[in-house]
Formats: sequence, C-alpha cells, structure tokens
Amino acid sequence: MRVGVLGTGGVGQTLAAKFASLGHDVMMGTRDVQAARARAEAGWGATVLSEWLAKNPEVKLGTFAEAASHGEIVVNATAGMASLDALKLAGAENLDGKVLIDVSNPLDFSQGFPPALSVCNTDSLAEQIQRAFPGAKVVKTLNTVNMDLMVGPSLVAGGDHHVFVSGNNEGAKAEVTKILKDWFGWRDVIDLGDITSARGTEMLLALWLRLSMVMQTPMATIKVVR
Amino acid sequence: MRVGVLGTGGVGQTLAAKFASLGHDVMMGTRDVQAARARAEAGWGATVLSEWLAKNPEVKLGTFAEAASHGEIVVNATAGMASLDALKLAGAENLDGKVLIDVSNPLDFSQGFPPALSVCNTDSLAEQIQRAFPGAKVVKTLNTVNMDLMVGPSLVAGGDHHVFVSGNNEGAKAEVTKILKDWFGWRDVIDLGDITSARGTEMLLALWLRLSMVMQTPMATIKVVR
Repeated sequence: MRVGVLGTGGVGQTLAAKFASLGHDVMMGTRDVQAARARAEAGWGATVLSEWLAKNPEVKLGTFAEAASHGEIVVNATAGMASLDALKLAGAENLDGKVLIDVSNPLDFSQGFPPALSVCNTDSLAEQIQRAFPGAKVVKTLNTVNMDLMVGPSLVAGGDHHVFVSGNNEGAKAEVTKILKDWFGWRDVIDLGDITSARGTEMLLALWLRLSMVMQTPMATIKVVR
Repeated sequence: MRVGVLGTGGVGQTLAAKFASLGHDVMMGTRDVQAARARAEAGWGATVLSEWLAKNPEVKLGTFAEAASHGEIVVNATAGMASLDALKLAGAENLDGKVLIDVSNPLDFSQGFPPALSVCNTDSLAEQIQRAFPGAKVVKTLNTVNMDLMVGPSLVAGGDHHVFVSGNNEGAKAEVTKILKDWFGWRDVIDLGDITSARGTEMLLALWLRLSMVMQTPMATIKVVR
C-alpha cells in the first residue's frame, strides 16, 4: 500500500520505518525538502534526517503535498502546533476521501515543561483537522503512547495495554484498527466514539506527561480495566 | 479519628459510610441541614439523605463549617462546580493546618453530557482550592474512579490498578496514601507530584467519561504499565 507520512521527526521516522519494513511504499512529507535534507540537527527522539534516509533508502522524501498525494492512506505525524499548517500545505485535494491517521498532540511548549495543550476540553486538534478537511476520514489514534510503543506495543507489559481510535467514519476506524492489530501488533483497540472523543485521548497527555516524569520513562501507558 | 466529609451526595455518602465502618467519628457537612434532611430526592448514585442517615446513625450531619471544624481531616466530596463555595462556607479557620482530601471533579453539565471541565489545562480545581485556602494541605486523589471503587478497589481487576495523589505537602500525601492503602485497600498509589499535577487526573475525566459510555459501566479505570 502507498503510505504518506507527514512529518520527519521521531514519530514520522518511526512510523515510516515500520510501514516500509512491512513492504509498503512510503513517502515522508516535509515543508521544504532541500532544507530538511540539509538539516544537521534532529528533534527529540529523531535521527538527523539525511542519516536516517541513508539508512532507510526505500523511504522517499517529498513535500507535504507530494507525500499526501502519494499515500492511499496518510498519517499526520507533525508536531501538533504545526499540524493544521502542514495539512494545508498537503492540500485538501490530496486528502479527500482518504483515511487520515492523526497521531499528533497539541502540545504547547512555549511556557516550558510540562507543556499545556493549545486546544482542549470543548474542542480538540483532531476535530480542528476534521473540520478543516471535511473530505478526509480522520481517525485519531496512537497519540497516547511513546513512538516506540506505537509500533511495538509488546515492548511494555507484553502488549497487555490499550490504544484508542476516535473518528466519525466507521469504515475508516475499522481500517485503522486492522492496521494497528495486523501491522503494529496491538491486541486491544478501544473505539471511543466519534471524533469528539479525541478530546479524551489528547487530554490524557496531561496525566501522561506527569507519569513519564515521576516514572522517568516515556514508555508508561495505560491498560483499561473494569 | 474525627473526619469531616463535605457533601452529602453519592460520593459523600460512600466515603462517610466507609470511614464510619472503620470506627471513625464522621460528620457530613451540607449547606442547609434542615433543607438537606427534608429533601425527598437524591442525586446520581445517592440515597435520599434522611433514609441514608437512618441507616447510618453513627454519622452526624452538620453545616459545612461544623463538619470542617469536626474533622481532624476533611474531605471535599462536593460537586466540583460548587466546591469553592462550599469550602468558603466551611471556613478557612476550620481548614487551616488540616489535610484536605479533594476527590471532586470540575464537571460542567450545563452543555449536556458528556460534561466539559470548568477549569483545566493551565489550572485545576485542586489548585484553585489550594490557592483559596493556603493553610490547608490539599491532596487530590480518588477523583479518577467511581465512588464504589474509591473505597473498594478490589471490585475491579482484583484491585490491580492505580490511584494517584497530587499535593504540595509531602507529609499530607504520605498520610493520605496510608489512608488509601490501610483503610480503603488500595495497593498501588502513584505520587504524581505537586498540586499542579492534579490537572492530569482531572483532565483524565474526558477519557474516563467516554470509556464509561462505550463500556457501559462507571467501573472502568486505568492501570499504569511501563
């Protein structure tokens, strides 16, 4: 399958590598391809992009628009505060009718750590994206876990924990659930409801950030029990 | 120990009954004692107060101020939107120097269900309470679980799940942790940090409400894994 991954940071690299390892035809999207290739530094959890691309030669690099156009499914792995801009550059015409997997969080680091959310409570980034791109089938998922856990749920507690999907399109949620289970190895995927339920998983970040601080690991996550 | 429980709803009743069953000297506090005794209806999860008091004769009923004055420790079990008002009626002089266990959530039902939060993200109800009553040792806890689970953690998954404490006073958190473990039976109590970490547990309600809807039970809660 052709997959477009928007964002070349740690999350984008992790997801792109996983998709490629499964034999999918992956293009990562960035704002400025030349500038991205020339960048000598990498963000948190990421590898310098030119080095990463050398190690992952099967992954293509293009603009946001080229990557979105390339993908039969598209993943938003950009930083949450930049996601709406990145998706505008990707272009509504390249997202129409497609499943758009949104793994971002609207983390605002401007006031330091831990970050606050730039949107929450009565709205969410996922809803903002769905409203801005009504033709896309937005499915919020994986934003509650560290990037390594996204594609390797068994790294923690033998995989005995949960991930969530939120979205308005039932078919899209079923497709993403299949990807999570069959491609990434998730055992337990909870359908939280429509896209407004993404408020719950985005707001979980406030707890998740504290847990990662007191437990001194970004691998902490939650299992739902009842 | 003398315990003051502010609030006579389902949460207040559950906690007061548990404290009393352990032999503690409990007074529940309400705004207007006569009106509360005369009320013919009960809120969600509660018993009509006069009937409840008849079944729990060892629990006293007083004003917010009387209950706060009575307690060596005080529990805020009022509805979150009414908590600051209730605590003002309780009186700073009756809270000074005491551990104030805050189990409330700032749920705003004015726009329907699921409720939004009346404060979140860069502040929390627990912080508002601590700022308004600087002499009290506020410890936020138990607000992430259903009232039955608060005092009966083994009702779900054999008790193999987590509750959290947030607060600025280490001694108060240690005392509350001991109460949670020795009195209520909690096995795993995570100290999230200072009172600002209550943002995390209050914001968890956005996810918790959705989980309770899709799982059709208020008993759903979380276990932290790493």
